[in-house]
Amino acid sequence: MHGAASLAAAWAWLDAVPLGPPETVPAASALGRVTAAPVASPADQPDRDYAARDGYAVRATDTEGASAYAPIPLPAVPIVAGAALPPGADAVLEPDAFDGAALLSLAPGEGVVRQGEQVRRGDPAIPPGIRLRPDHVALLAELGIAALPVRPAPRVRLRIAGPKAGADTLTPLLAGLLARDGATATFAATDAADLILFAGRSGPGSDDDGPATLAAAGGRLDLHGIAIRPGGTSGLGWLGDAPVLLLPGEPLACLGAYTLLAARLVRRLAGLAWPPGRPIVVTLRRKIVSAIGVTDLARVSLHGDEAVPLGPPEEGGLAGAARADGFVIVPEASEGHAAGSLVTVHPFDPEAGR
Amino acid sequence: MHGAASLAAAWAWLDAVPLGPPETVPAASALGRVTAAPVASPADQPDRDYAARDGYAVRATDTEGASAYAPIPLPAVPIVAGAALPPGADAVLEPDAFDGAALLSLAPGEGVVRQGEQVRRGDPAIPPGIRLRPDHVALLAELGIAALPVRPAPRVRLRIAGPKAGADTLTPLLAGLLARDGATATFAATDAADLILFAGRSGPGSDDDGPATLAAAGGRLDLHGIAIRPGGTSGLGWLGDAPVLLLPGEPLACLGAYTLLAARLVRRLAGLAWPPGRPIVVTLRRKIVSAIGVTDLARVSLHGDEAVPLGPPEEGGLAGAARADGFVIVPEASEGHAAGSLVTVHPFDPEAGR
Repeated sequence: MHGAASLAAAWAWLDAVPLGPPETVPAASALGRVTAAPVASPADQPDRDYAARDGYAVRATDTEGASAYAPIPLPAVPIVAGAALPPGADAVLEPDAFDGAALLSLAPGEGVVRQGEQVRRGDPAIPPGIRLRPDHVALLAELGIAALPVRPAPRVRLRIAGPKAGADTLTPLLAGLLARDGATATFAATDAADLILFAGRSGPGSDDDGPATLAAAGGRLDLHGIAIRPGGTSGLGWLGDAPVLLLPGEPLACLGAYTLLAARLVRRLAGLAWPPGRPIVVTLRRKIVSAIGVTDLARVSLHGDEAVPLGPPEEGGLAGAARADGFVIVPEASEGHAAGSLVTVHPFDPEAGR
Repeated sequence: MHGAASLAAAWAWLDAVPLGPPETVPAASALGRVTAAPVASPADQPDRDYAARDGYAVRATDTEGASAYAPIPLPAVPIVAGAALPPGADAVLEPDAFDGAALLSLAPGEGVVRQGEQVRRGDPAIPPGIRLRPDHVALLAELGIAALPVRPAPRVRLRIAGPKAGADTLTPLLAGLLARDGATATFAATDAADLILFAGRSGPGSDDDGPATLAAAGGRLDLHGIAIRPGGTSGLGWLGDAPVLLLPGEPLACLGAYTLLAARLVRRLAGLAWPPGRPIVVTLRRKIVSAIGVTDLARVSLHGDEAVPLGPPEEGGLAGAARADGFVIVPEASEGHAAGSLVTVHPFDPEAGR
């Protein structure tokens, strides 16, 4: 589109959308949510000295000099892993190291987990900005933390224009992407929304009523036409208090615009980094050609440590997207990358490992 | 434990557990599932030539030699992106390139998406072994594929021994890990199961009734005691047709054993690669010490391109796990890694990007 805004201008617009306040959720449903504040431990963990292994609780000084060749008879209490140490004991002999006499010399604390050794009362057990994994949620249970502040899941209202032909592909596409990005998709115009996605009919064509529909609803467009491929007909605006993104209806263009624009905002609202996953630096098997003045999302497939470009950014449709493992962002100022050069690839599915 | 089996022996045992047959699921609920066979396209995509952009449909040969300085008046039909080309037309002029006369010379097919260009009837639109992303599911909708064969989600029965002290941490830990690995957790002994996890009471201590409980139920242990840290008291066996893993009750040991043993089997059953995500090669800031004869799961935190080891593999509990971004596998034959050496880190959460 003529007069298209730069991707940098679009990102500045998106990055200025304010974050809402954190919400408090039960620990039991916090898996996958992102901490909004440090989670301080309410107690020492462990809350007492305990045996790290099955064996015999002893006073370490009583074992001084003991070995298989110089056993030292001493009183010892059988103990199971996890049990509190009896008074006076400060070490645990392994079962093989005691047969009525110590067969091994221990230092105080050997075979013992000390009170507060793992985390001290008041110390941050989990920092802010962490997407909670199963071990984090188990730690919350261990520490007796019942609820904690997290970034709210963005509520994203989808308004999908009926496809010009064929099946509705935009609903499964966008609903799936929103789930990946920690958001909740809603469909009713009455639902509260942190973001509204108008998908389809975003362009300048005679039947492209996206902008008009937004205007008729009392909204406004701040930017319309972004210098990206695919997805150049996208727009950014407001409807009441909610930011609105117009996304193209051609599915590959919609995916491109979602990836370069919407995902950046949705993931920031959810507390997640954009783009997802860790970038991979690989060698380009064939050149990528790009035009000055437009940022290209160049799809590639990965083959070991090589990336193979999959054709022009606006061609190939969903079948072309499905063949890709990730994308290279070719900035406005770049004419592309030569074969053999190193490029940074952002994986579409970081968990898949390719 | 004495007489512990090598991790290689345990992996050989796990890798010999047979895969069940694929199952057929509706495309609408296939997100995140793994294809069990190539998905062939039932039709050309697109199924007809159509306009790639809004503009004017023309016969390309009529525009030969046209430019802004040499406009060629010709008949042209306004067309919107996605619409089928009218008879005789084979190219689409952009709106700016027509004002009653063509201002640009086009080759046949310019501005047009050709029938079958994205995928041809009968060609594989999605290969086997692909975890379906949102764009894959949208492609299934586009191609009119209503159902497809995928790897079944492993049904994993959890039998958690009550904790020796404190809260139940193993249920949220294992349920979360199973969800990540594409499995369904079940709890009733009557539920059909592809795998049974006995968590807790796996060791040789006086109260460790895991092996006895398995034997009393008619099961058997093939291996008990695996040379891994943490998680050395793990066991592998059978109960009827279902493989059984005994996992330690100490949460960090349970996480270690799940990661090195259970995840490998669960993810293979689900069609997913193990370990999850793409490994990262980084520089070790401090040394990792390991013992010959035992495979260590060494937790590390990541700081840019450096990995910092987080203490001995069996120490730190869930709080120690929660501080880690990933792990290094230190094989049996290795005494560890020197500071400054390059190590391969497997991220605990590949999507988090660190």
